[in-house]
Amino acid sequence: MKRNTYGWVVHRRLLLFILIQLPISLIQAQHRADSIFIQKLFSTALVQKQGYYFLKDLCNHAGPRISGSPEAAKAVEIAYDYLKRFGADTVYKQEVMVPHWVRGKVHEGYYLSGKTKHTIQIEALGGSIATPHGGIAAEVVEVKGLKDIKNFTEKDIKGRMVFFNGPMEEEHIQTFKAYGGCVSQRWAGAMEAAKLGAVAVIIRSVTMSVDYYPHTGSMGYNDTIKKIPAVATSTIDADRLSKELKKNPSLKLFYNIDCKTLPDVLSHNVVGEIKGSVYPNDVILVGGHLDAWDLAEGAHDDGAGIAHSLEVIRLFKELGYQPKRTIRVVCFMNEENGLRGAIKYGEWAKTNGETHILALETDAGGFTPRGFSFDTDDKSYAFINTWQPLLHQFGIGEITRGGSGADINRLKGNCTILCGLHPDSQRYFDHHHAANDVFEAVHPRELELGSAACATLLYLVDKYW
Amino acid sequence: MKRNTYGWVVHRRLLLFILIQLPISLIQAQHRADSIFIQKLFSTALVQKQGYYFLKDLCNHAGPRISGSPEAAKAVEIAYDYLKRFGADTVYKQEVMVPHWVRGKVHEGYYLSGKTKHTIQIEALGGSIATPHGGIAAEVVEVKGLKDIKNFTEKDIKGRMVFFNGPMEEEHIQTFKAYGGCVSQRWAGAMEAAKLGAVAVIIRSVTMSVDYYPHTGSMGYNDTIKKIPAVATSTIDADRLSKELKKNPSLKLFYNIDCKTLPDVLSHNVVGEIKGSVYPNDVILVGGHLDAWDLAEGAHDDGAGIAHSLEVIRLFKELGYQPKRTIRVVCFMNEENGLRGAIKYGEWAKTNGETHILALETDAGGFTPRGFSFDTDDKSYAFINTWQPLLHQFGIGEITRGGSGADINRLKGNCTILCGLHPDSQRYFDHHHAANDVFEAVHPRELELGSAACATLLYLVDKYW
Repeated sequence: MKRNTYGWVVHRRLLLFILIQLPISLIQAQHRADSIFIQKLFSTALVQKQGYYFLKDLCNHAGPRISGSPEAAKAVEIAYDYLKRFGADTVYKQEVMVPHWVRGKVHEGYYLSGKTKHTIQIEALGGSIATPHGGIAAEVVEVKGLKDIKNFTEKDIKGRMVFFNGPMEEEHIQTFKAYGGCVSQRWAGAMEAAKLGAVAVIIRSVTMSVDYYPHTGSMGYNDTIKKIPAVATSTIDADRLSKELKKNPSLKLFYNIDCKTLPDVLSHNVVGEIKGSVYPNDVILVGGHLDAWDLAEGAHDDGAGIAHSLEVIRLFKELGYQPKRTIRVVCFMNEENGLRGAIKYGEWAKTNGETHILALETDAGGFTPRGFSFDTDDKSYAFINTWQPLLHQFGIGEITRGGSGADINRLKGNCTILCGLHPDSQRYFDHHHAANDVFEAVHPRELELGSAACATLLYLVDKYW
Repeated sequence: MKRNTYGWVVHRRLLLFILIQLPISLIQAQHRADSIFIQKLFSTALVQKQGYYFLKDLCNHAGPRISGSPEAAKAVEIAYDYLKRFGADTVYKQEVMVPHWVRGKVHEGYYLSGKTKHTIQIEALGGSIATPHGGIAAEVVEVKGLKDIKNFTEKDIKGRMVFFNGPMEEEHIQTFKAYGGCVSQRWAGAMEAAKLGAVAVIIRSVTMSVDYYPHTGSMGYNDTIKKIPAVATSTIDADRLSKELKKNPSLKLFYNIDCKTLPDVLSHNVVGEIKGSVYPNDVILVGGHLDAWDLAEGAHDDGAGIAHSLEVIRLFKELGYQPKRTIRVVCFMNEENGLRGAIKYGEWAKTNGETHILALETDAGGFTPRGFSFDTDDKSYAFINTWQPLLHQFGIGEITRGGSGADINRLKGNCTILCGLHPDSQRYFDHHHAANDVFEAVHPRELELGSAACATLLYLVDKYW
């Protein structure tokens, strides 16, 4: 009896041990297997650099590719070809009508200090109307950001040019936070100034970089408010102008732009897929935007995001990973000045009853990735967080709750997880919407780490959801 | 009785609640207070950028500052002045004799393909002897890294030049790991080649960057082995040479360098302190190295580390933080080719019975910081890890066990915690020891985030140790 009891105790302990240890061992083994596969994703991206070479092609051959331009049409063809080449089993274009704003050729700006003419660098904001033929000259009222204009009256502003000189606040660690607090002067400056009778607007570029590049970007008009032209000037020119205005408040600023809005143009989102082997109707999406502002090559914004997305398909193919769910890359058109591609895709997905498990947007540059932000329910977020130690091993463990991106926002309510890739943000706004957003500003390894980060998240969602 | 018993139960529960909740509340309040102070460290560094302006001075006015040079002496004066200006209450120079190697003026390299002369970019490795007057020409044996030379015999090598063409392995996420696997050809290549009768050595630059910059760095000789000259060539030239050798194995390579080693020179470590208000004998150290290779300004290597260290003192002063323990900045001399400053400081600290709680070395560039590696006992490491969530908030939560740095290594055994700052490593070796390690390659915000990261760690150690 005693022996038997003892034997039962031993057996019970052994059983308990097995019951506890087995799942732990299985989890550990699984963790190791995932770790090995993810390391392969990173190594393959870093060694082969195919996303980087795609980006070179996109920047060199499509270049500045604002919606509606021949360059944007060229970008559609390049993305289509690469998706096929990278191994997507289905590639198609989704038609979408896009706005067609053109900058024109004239962009001249100066002020007079005594009899000396001081040229300043200016570029029209995207969507601005032209100045009257020959340009516009007016006295200048300096305003520190959009909120500050509430301290001025029609008497101060009428017939004058408003100079929005609100800087990005440097104390934020995340530059996107500083951008969020400052970009309103670009979007709404012309409307608010026009309400008080201003004849034109000039804004300080939304960047922390101290240089001579004007940074463009979209601006809004309202049919109930008079439309006035709006330009951005560089931070160095903004500082000079501000200094000069203190000495000479009646200084006149001149500028001349000849941009215009043409009729809408037929364009395309480009979609590529690897069909899921088990749940082909479950879609896991990764995407960025194909269009870019017309001042440069849109290497970081958002050639990098397209490169990341295309690389996800290529890396899976290269490593022989057959996803259970459908991996879909969407290269959205017209993020910068209309979001027509996003709207189109969102409507189509809804009408078609597409089941999106996750949509990952990458539109924050080709810098070293740090993690992801998630817009999802508590249960899904908790589940994602179980991957944090694994992601941490690869330097992408910064998991936060937060916004995802403008292009996938239309899927909200029809997609379990919306999320955004978070690369290091320090240098992003140095290049954002300016002439220095060129291929050479992208580091091959930093870009490819982003590709591997996207592939890692999609792999985990595909495998464990 | 019943009421009393019930009352006791209630009181006991209340007491239990208080006993559990009070420390939690206190910890939370403390965590909030720390979080607020650390945010101030970051904001102040990012807005004021004084470390960045110091770095500009160091790069512009001391420039290339190899040990023993007038530029290194100038760097000593600049660091001394800034430590005073930044608020150290004690600043002094610590005498140390340093090696004095000079590159000379000649650095010419070419090979002949048929009758066409192909120039290649070369620079002497630090410490190399000169070629015979007029240069050296020899047939070339290509070897893939140091291990590969074991596949060759004296018959293959004798009278020839060995071309070590081992690349940095790109599959590693951390570039320092790839460096560690490749740098041996630079350090030991000349010795191993000379053993087999080689007349000279040329190595592929230890970088992943595809460009025309030769990257120098220290090399070793051994008195029992014949000394032969050694140079680095750029990665582009290394690839061209390798390709050419496949077509023409009897190709002759010529190079000419006139470097030499002069007698040792008196130089200095520079030390600055804020004396501790409670435990002045407990030292918390942060440092980097003042010397830099002579090809460029040593902005990332290691002007950035000196800037970080000086900023710690300035930030504490600026924010009125009075440390309990002594905060000591050490600007080490001669890290690159001798470690004499490190040896001197280590010996002095031992002789003087200095109590070091923590020594933090920052010598991995001025890029966005990610975390720290710690070389310490289990208990201390566990304690440091309790700060991880707080550090994570500021993007510096990557806490690992590992090496610290060459300059503080001499304190091992006499310092509770040795640690190293880990910035993002992707771009470091693009600039390392090459002519493009210039001030303009440092991003002001990335640099200052590093300053704030160092200040954060020192603050936590000072407050909670």
